Amino acid sequence: MRIGFGIDFHQLVPGRDFWLGGVHIPYHKGALGHSDADVLLHAICDALLGAACLGDIGLHFPDTSAEYKNIDSKILLQKCVSLIAEKGYKIINIDSSICLEAPKIKPYVKQMQQVIASACNIMEEDVSVKATTTEKMGFVGREEGLVAYATVLIHKPTKLVM
Amino acid sequence: MRIGFGIDFHQLVPGRDFWLGGVHIPYHKGALGHSDADVLLHAICDALLGAACLGDIGLHFPDTSAEYKNIDSKILLQKCVSLIAEKGYKIINIDSSICLEAPKIKPYVKQMQQVIASACNIMEEDVSVKATTTEKMGFVGREEGLVAYATVLIHKPTKLVM
Amino acid sequence: MRIGFGIDFHQLVPGRDFWLGGVHIPYHKGALGHSDADVLLHAICDALLGAACLGDIGLHFPDTSAEYKNIDSKILLQKCVSLIAEKGYKIINIDSSICLEAPKIKPYVKQMQQVIASACNIMEEDVSVKATTTEKMGFVGREEGLVAYATVLIHKPTKLVM
Repeated sequence: MRIGFGIDFHQLVPGRDFWLGGVHIPYHKGALGHSDADVLLHAICDALLGAACLGDIGLHFPDTSAEYKNIDSKILLQKCVSLIAEKGYKIINIDSSICLEAPKIKPYVKQMQQVIASACNIMEEDVSVKATTTEKMGFVGREEGLVAYATVLIHKPTKLVM
Repeated sequence: MRIGFGIDFHQLVPGRDFWLGGVHIPYHKGALGHSDADVLLHAICDALLGAACLGDIGLHFPDTSAEYKNIDSKILLQKCVSLIAEKGYKIINIDSSICLEAPKIKPYVKQMQQVIASACNIMEEDVSVKATTTEKMGFVGREEGLVAYATVLIHKPTKLVM
Repeated sequence: MRIGFGIDFHQLVPGRDFWLGGVHIPYHKGALGHSDADVLLHAICDALLGAACLGDIGLHFPDTSAEYKNIDSKILLQKCVSLIAEKGYKIINIDSSICLEAPKIKPYVKQMQQVIASACNIMEEDVSVKATTTEKMGFVGREEGLVAYATVLIHKPTKLVM
């Protein structure tokens, strides 16, 4: 069994689609980045890679590569799941927290869990997505951007040999 | 076994009692919030709920509800422990970090551990409370507020049938 | 098995050597602190101490003590590993994230893993070091300082008695 932790940051700016947890959220701003800038999926990617000691998201999907321009981060997440599977690891559970001032994401949490569970080949009850504001403080409080944290537990299933 | 992570933020303002880790700390400011605004207990609540995939503190104890106005967060923590117990989970250990510039909380850490252990029905040695400043940087460094992080490990005890 | 979490902050200022993950990084600024101000090693120290419920780095190595003035944080890390070993714990794995805007640390990550693994008496593949910017936001984005996060899993090996 191994532990992983991920954190990701993106600015929120007008004129971008807002993707979060693999779900499109109608909002007048969106996260700025080379890919679709989905902070939650990026944090989960980093937690998975970290747990398996496989580097980080910047190493695998460099933001200087045209291949990843505006890419759907669900594809990146699936690649990370494949990378840890190649080393024999399975996900036990994922817990995550999104820090943002607005909009309210509660209506989208269930769908995020479904999307993430599907990309990770795990059950929906093994993916938790939580959210909090920063009580108007800092760059999140000023609505300049958002942050996501993810922790994961992975393991190598014991093979029973008869 | 499952992992959980929680984070919480509150402003520090004059004219409020300062509750932290279930302990009243004499200080000229206190955390602003709907409940007693105990960031550490809230982070632990969120970590427990996240580990068991039971949503977040905002879902269970909405800050729009009169029921939770100025409520003692120990009660919220006990409710979270009950919620995960209903799903068959027990806490293995809790580790937490408080980021604040002032006051020094070292004299209160032992008491916080006792209070949290008691609310969670675990041993004191299974609750860790740590603290750090942010070296004068950011909103914590400017003493506008404080942040708490918590991680937990929970498990479903194996039932031995004779 | 137990979980631990650590976080550490330091300002980046001219005229200091920049130590990160036990590695000296050539840069025109360095982290300000009483010791060598290695945020990554400090976060790992705190995660180890927290997992074993042994207090925090400020308790064991007070920044008011001349003994720790400009000390190499690898020595602090080794002491933390000894402290948890005295309680019977071994490290399963460490995952960490550094948030800083500049310089790029990718060229140093491999060496950091080697140094940390050596100080902790674990394999290099059990130490993960990741990095991200904060996308120009906040005090990290303004290059005033940096933050490191670490999570660890430790356990008491089962003794087999024949």
